[in-house]
Amino acid sequence: MSNRLGAQTVTFSKEPRILSSYTIVGPMEGKGPHALDFDEILPDDVLNQKTPEKSERLILEMAIEKTLSKNNTKLDDVQFLIAGDLLNQIISSTFAATTYAAPFLGVYGACSTFAQAMGLGAALLQGDFASQVLVGTASHYQTAERQFRYPIELNIQHQVTNHHTVTGAGAALLGFADQGPRITHATFGAVVDMGLKDPNDMGSAMAPAAFATIKQHLQDTELNLDAYDMVLTGDLGKQGRKMLRLLLEKEGIQGLDRLQDGGSKIYGDGQKTGAGGSGAACIAVMTLGYALNKLKSAKARRVLIVATGALLSSLTVAQGESIPCIAHAIVLEA
Amino acid sequence: MSNRLGAQTVTFSKEPRILSSYTIVGPMEGKGPHALDFDEILPDDVLNQKTPEKSERLILEMAIEKTLSKNNTKLDDVQFLIAGDLLNQIISSTFAATTYAAPFLGVYGACSTFAQAMGLGAALLQGDFASQVLVGTASHYQTAERQFRYPIELNIQHQVTNHHTVTGAGAALLGFADQGPRITHATFGAVVDMGLKDPNDMGSAMAPAAFATIKQHLQDTELNLDAYDMVLTGDLGKQGRKMLRLLLEKEGIQGLDRLQDGGSKIYGDGQKTGAGGSGAACIAVMTLGYALNKLKSAKARRVLIVATGALLSSLTVAQGESIPCIAHAIVLEA
Repeated sequence: MSNRLGAQTVTFSKEPRILSSYTIVGPMEGKGPHALDFDEILPDDVLNQKTPEKSERLILEMAIEKTLSKNNTKLDDVQFLIAGDLLNQIISSTFAATTYAAPFLGVYGACSTFAQAMGLGAALLQGDFASQVLVGTASHYQTAERQFRYPIELNIQHQVTNHHTVTGAGAALLGFADQGPRITHATFGAVVDMGLKDPNDMGSAMAPAAFATIKQHLQDTELNLDAYDMVLTGDLGKQGRKMLRLLLEKEGIQGLDRLQDGGSKIYGDGQKTGAGGSGAACIAVMTLGYALNKLKSAKARRVLIVATGALLSSLTVAQGESIPCIAHAIVLEA
Repeated sequence: MSNRLGAQTVTFSKEPRILSSYTIVGPMEGKGPHALDFDEILPDDVLNQKTPEKSERLILEMAIEKTLSKNNTKLDDVQFLIAGDLLNQIISSTFAATTYAAPFLGVYGACSTFAQAMGLGAALLQGDFASQVLVGTASHYQTAERQFRYPIELNIQHQVTNHHTVTGAGAALLGFADQGPRITHATFGAVVDMGLKDPNDMGSAMAPAAFATIKQHLQDTELNLDAYDMVLTGDLGKQGRKMLRLLLEKEGIQGLDRLQDGGSKIYGDGQKTGAGGSGAACIAVMTLGYALNKLKSAKARRVLIVATGALLSSLTVAQGESIPCIAHAIVLEA
């Protein structure tokens, strides 16, 4: 276990790096305060596709395509494609994978999927199983809304604690190079279920999972939060973010000024998006857009990404079950 | 990439082994020809649970529990739980993971999930990320039937090409030891879509994926099928099995007498189960039951497991999409 550090953290001494990446968001995210952080803002979220599921798949394919071409990498040189999304049977990822026929690992961790995939990709590089790994996640407001909530045509009023699913995709090519942001650690979370049952307040359900993973990460690495220039959680939203801060404060953890939340930041205050953004694309575009720009422009040297996921399904909600949650963390260094 | 062999195959020179495993099946599978291969046959598939989803979760937890206790392993000594199932948002696995709070990696590959999880688990061991990894998959006839097909109460007549989802679960503890079956290779499949669209004939859709992975595995390892005492595919069923044989024959691949199909074998001819068994549990219980018994009793020394998955969803079928398929392979040696 020489690549291990404590109970839940693994280390990547061979310094796998993000060779290239590409972020795409929908028009709504393109009107938010982070518009300039993203590579591409779509003029509309339909893209001439017959269904929003086809649009979601297409956006993921576009992100993968651009990520490969930015690094002049051919698909044949990629040993794994790791992808996941929110849809039943992760169809956006599996259908996109028919186009990019690399060995495919489908993963699911709801909105935490991106960090799980990145950590796993870095592990396959560190473990000498691959020289290049492609990672991608996507989500779409329309597909998620009708799968998890109500048909969009009903125009159901959202609550202030509701998240708004981000339309977008993020892809990254991981490998070895002389420069570029490194992935140095991953802390894989355990599932945490505090018994919360309100699917309209996933932030509160996810905060304890973020807390557990952060606490374990700090214990495993013997660091405090101020070892990081930014700790970017996602997608806790406005309520969950507060709850996480309270939990960390109560635990006596220092450096809370480093905390930012991707879901809370992706939309502007006037955008009527409830608690903030969510979806498998949210932390992906905020990491590969916002956080990577900070690292590249030397505004940050070391960033902790803590992606959170609510592992509910429409059926478990209907059956009155609580909402199990998870958070996976990765460390990015300039 | 020192742990790599060819385009899609990885090798595990440190010899990760199956330290213990446990297989559970429902009453129907317990009446099939492989009843004696399984550790436990349930008296009924409801188990006093309020919903079949709760039963499926419980069966997975039972398999995990027994696997740990058979090897006297405490959960604290396990660095990863890798699990997946067929249900939307893999709820059986994530809800079971709330009970077994190890770092959790949710994976999805439909009925191929088991081999994906086993290959990934072996990679984490080989890569020095863990000393023990727990793998589990489950499926349940009632949950899958109502999610993918029709409410059971409708009593819809099945076609002869329909699969019957296996009720059951298989779990395995992977780690290092002086004896026990070794996992020596994994070949991770790419997604293959031949344009087939009939959700009532998944075997025919999956056969080309099994073919592609077997062909690549043989190319990567420079072996022929007769290097194996058994090549256990799953879950091609009676139609898909024939199609795979034709494809391999046409390719001039030798050793077709080694082919057996888990889905075709799990039920007896008189059990009215159409093409045969399927579900994330099918190849799991056939591998950890049937194949492992062969290895343990020295009836086989080397077995190739080729788990197949049809990556459709109810929605993609309704939208007229074709069925992307995948096959992941692992090599087990005595």
